[in-house]
Amino acid sequence: MRVTVWNEYRHEVTKEHVAKIYPDGIHGLIASFLRKRGFEVKTATLLEPEHGLTDEVLDNTDVLIWWGHCRHKDVRDDIVDKVYERVMRGMGLIVLHSGHYSKIFKRLMGTSCSLKWHISEKERIWTVAPNHPIAKGVDETFVLPEEEMYGERFDIPEPEEVVFMSWFSGGYVFRSGCTFKRGLGKIFYFRPGHEEFASFHNENVQKIIGNACEWACPNKIGGPLSAPCVAPLE
Amino acid sequence: MRVTVWNEYRHEVTKEHVAKIYPDGIHGLIASFLRKRGFEVKTATLLEPEHGLTDEVLDNTDVLIWWGHCRHKDVRDDIVDKVYERVMRGMGLIVLHSGHYSKIFKRLMGTSCSLKWHISEKERIWTVAPNHPIAKGVDETFVLPEEEMYGERFDIPEPEEVVFMSWFSGGYVFRSGCTFKRGLGKIFYFRPGHEEFASFHNENVQKIIGNACEWACPNKIGGPLSAPCVAPLE
Amino acid sequence: MRVTVWNEYRHEVTKEHVAKIYPDGIHGLIASFLRKRGFEVKTATLLEPEHGLTDEVLDNTDVLIWWGHCRHKDVRDDIVDKVYERVMRGMGLIVLHSGHYSKIFKRLMGTSCSLKWHISEKERIWTVAPNHPIAKGVDETFVLPEEEMYGERFDIPEPEEVVFMSWFSGGYVFRSGCTFKRGLGKIFYFRPGHEEFASFHNENVQKIIGNACEWACPNKIGGPLSAPCVAPLE
Amino acid sequence: MRVTVWNEYRHEVTKEHVAKIYPDGIHGLIASFLRKRGFEVKTATLLEPEHGLTDEVLDNTDVLIWWGHCRHKDVRDDIVDKVYERVMRGMGLIVLHSGHYSKIFKRLMGTSCSLKWHISEKERIWTVAPNHPIAKGVDETFVLPEEEMYGERFDIPEPEEVVFMSWFSGGYVFRSGCTFKRGLGKIFYFRPGHEEFASFHNENVQKIIGNACEWACPNKIGGPLSAPCVAPLE
Repeated sequence: MRVTVWNEYRHEVTKEHVAKIYPDGIHGLIASFLRKRGFEVKTATLLEPEHGLTDEVLDNTDVLIWWGHCRHKDVRDDIVDKVYERVMRGMGLIVLHSGHYSKIFKRLMGTSCSLKWHISEKERIWTVAPNHPIAKGVDETFVLPEEEMYGERFDIPEPEEVVFMSWFSGGYVFRSGCTFKRGLGKIFYFRPGHEEFASFHNENVQKIIGNACEWACPNKIGGPLSAPCVAPLE
Repeated sequence: MRVTVWNEYRHEVTKEHVAKIYPDGIHGLIASFLRKRGFEVKTATLLEPEHGLTDEVLDNTDVLIWWGHCRHKDVRDDIVDKVYERVMRGMGLIVLHSGHYSKIFKRLMGTSCSLKWHISEKERIWTVAPNHPIAKGVDETFVLPEEEMYGERFDIPEPEEVVFMSWFSGGYVFRSGCTFKRGLGKIFYFRPGHEEFASFHNENVQKIIGNACEWACPNKIGGPLSAPCVAPLE
Repeated sequence: MRVTVWNEYRHEVTKEHVAKIYPDGIHGLIASFLRKRGFEVKTATLLEPEHGLTDEVLDNTDVLIWWGHCRHKDVRDDIVDKVYERVMRGMGLIVLHSGHYSKIFKRLMGTSCSLKWHISEKERIWTVAPNHPIAKGVDETFVLPEEEMYGERFDIPEPEEVVFMSWFSGGYVFRSGCTFKRGLGKIFYFRPGHEEFASFHNENVQKIIGNACEWACPNKIGGPLSAPCVAPLE
Repeated sequence: MRVTVWNEYRHEVTKEHVAKIYPDGIHGLIASFLRKRGFEVKTATLLEPEHGLTDEVLDNTDVLIWWGHCRHKDVRDDIVDKVYERVMRGMGLIVLHSGHYSKIFKRLMGTSCSLKWHISEKERIWTVAPNHPIAKGVDETFVLPEEEMYGERFDIPEPEEVVFMSWFSGGYVFRSGCTFKRGLGKIFYFRPGHEEFASFHNENVQKIIGNACEWACPNKIGGPLSAPCVAPLE
């Protein structure tokens, strides 16, 4: 299992209170707890050449994790094209929190991916599909004491599976863990993870992200996309 | 559009505070607001012969509404068989609140239909599929000040569409408006409607139930179920 | 019900044998049979200014029908953006045959939309969801004696509903009638309709396209897309 | 992985030409190729006490495979109840061919599970979800030279995933590999396997059944079903 954790990595550099929570960047923390599960983990960030997502990196990635927030529009379209093509061919993709507005997620969903938001509320997450591989070992319910609230309507296609749902103290609800398939690739969107709060330190959150990597790992990577002209078989 | 509203009709007879809220029974109130939409509405209750669901009644029903609570097990199996067969052949079915534990709903779902519950909490309902016919004209969010709480995990098959979701003051969430298809019949489960509270007087609730009747109305009623032996066509 | 039929309209102009089958263009024939159902129908084609899809036209369209084949790449991106935005806000979209490779369909699906193809085979279409509004009055099975074959795997997201499936004489199968929702808009993909064959003259095909317009017609058109910052409600 | 293969086991005993194809019974052959994958496999048949499905057997089964045909009605209801309860609590279930009409499958689907049928036709199976774990290593298309034909409409709920589709020489099509979830249990229906033909000797068929066992294996077995009264959490 070869995982690449992509992070915008701006808030952690420019805001002291974020740096305190994630001194090695959000990607650094995620990479760290995934390595403990025995995965082979790389990281990549916005300001690296090609955003750190060279062909070589992508060709050696089974599952890509994506966190972005304020710099979505600075992600180069040609890099998004490459990520998109890899998903079509089977690479798994895990989109976290504000990544709902990333170019790659909107392109794969075919919708606006808009939602309501508000900082901050108490979040309580419920496991609604306890039999799903992504929920393995996850508590039936757990609390993130402070999070950015995301509220419905979340403008996504009807998810194939809703694994987690969130309750917020301000009266909002959200489909917080959703699975999709696009091309040969499996996609998991997971809601928590605002940079100003410690959610990625939460044990259930870590377990979910690790499980999602295992679930999204492809059977095999397919060849280039094509629409072949074929001969009759019968 | 010919609607039959079935109600267990025991709480309204045996409990004074319920009778005050629903003096004509829950079925009486539902029939009344559906008639205002121009539907042709009959009612039927548990203690009538054949629970009021004779062949003649069922043969003239496009959509059946079901409310039951403490007397599920007293519903005759042969009547459930008949309702089931009509759903297979196209009759629409709208199951309300504690009807989640009715014989007919469990049979159509193929699951336990269990959930968490607690009396009482404030409920806030969110419209998550505003484009769905059942949500037509319904507010984006509305409050039922007092309701019996139903909490996830709601043990149902993955719904085809989740039209409404509920937030509860005690920290619970619920998929409150779910669509399913079984055989040729369309099924809508709608969560609110505990007998001790006034939810069926709520304008949004009434609109939803009326919309659901229109959505569930069959194109046509199919013939008897069979698995025909056929000849090659080519 | 205001329908706009968009057609690339090149084959009918450049190829005599196509012009014989569709002397008024594919759009002309479709418009003609939809008008007989009482719909208000406009047409629009590639070579008109703005491809005939001005703001005024789109603002007065409930359902857009799309047929394109060899000139997909000549459709202007800004027009595709506008169509996309209208679908997000509720406009229905019906994509026919080779429109599977149109910019708008690929954008809404988030997949390559590739498939196998071959000219020509006998096609037999099966109604697998006879209770669906789009199947109303459609035969259980019907034959298109000559069609371009499209074979699986069709690279689309898992459809919400598969209404029709195709059998081809050469040994291929296809999910030929598929529904999707994106934003507030309903989308129906329907497979038949190669320009060299008479499929749009087929009575079942005409019924399906008309039914699909009724099914895809929006409850209402929503406002502009946004991700609003909101205040706590509780 | 502990698999129990249940077989009606009547045709192989009463019909010589069936016994020639499956001298150890269909269950014997399935058990044999699953053992080669390293699974721990038991078998159970109709005429054994409790149909071989004692509490002890079921408590030690991760995935149950079901083949039945002409004796569905002889399966005891109390045994079906026990199997149903295990599926609710997480046991995987793989239903083969004419098992579509078994008591347990109809109960889990909530539909008639009817279909068209005819003996015999050439069947060509297509992998339509090559990224699905059940399709791992399976050919894009393969032929079963002689099979009982099953044709649409197959009266099941909309499957969560359609992994395989069949083409038949007589003009019929079928959703041949379908996944469902019920309670905590995963269910896979797979079409081939008429007793008079050699389909269970086919390498792709064997691979699919083995893959399906791995896919359906539960994360854990849940406790007894209940609808707990709970206290507010917030």
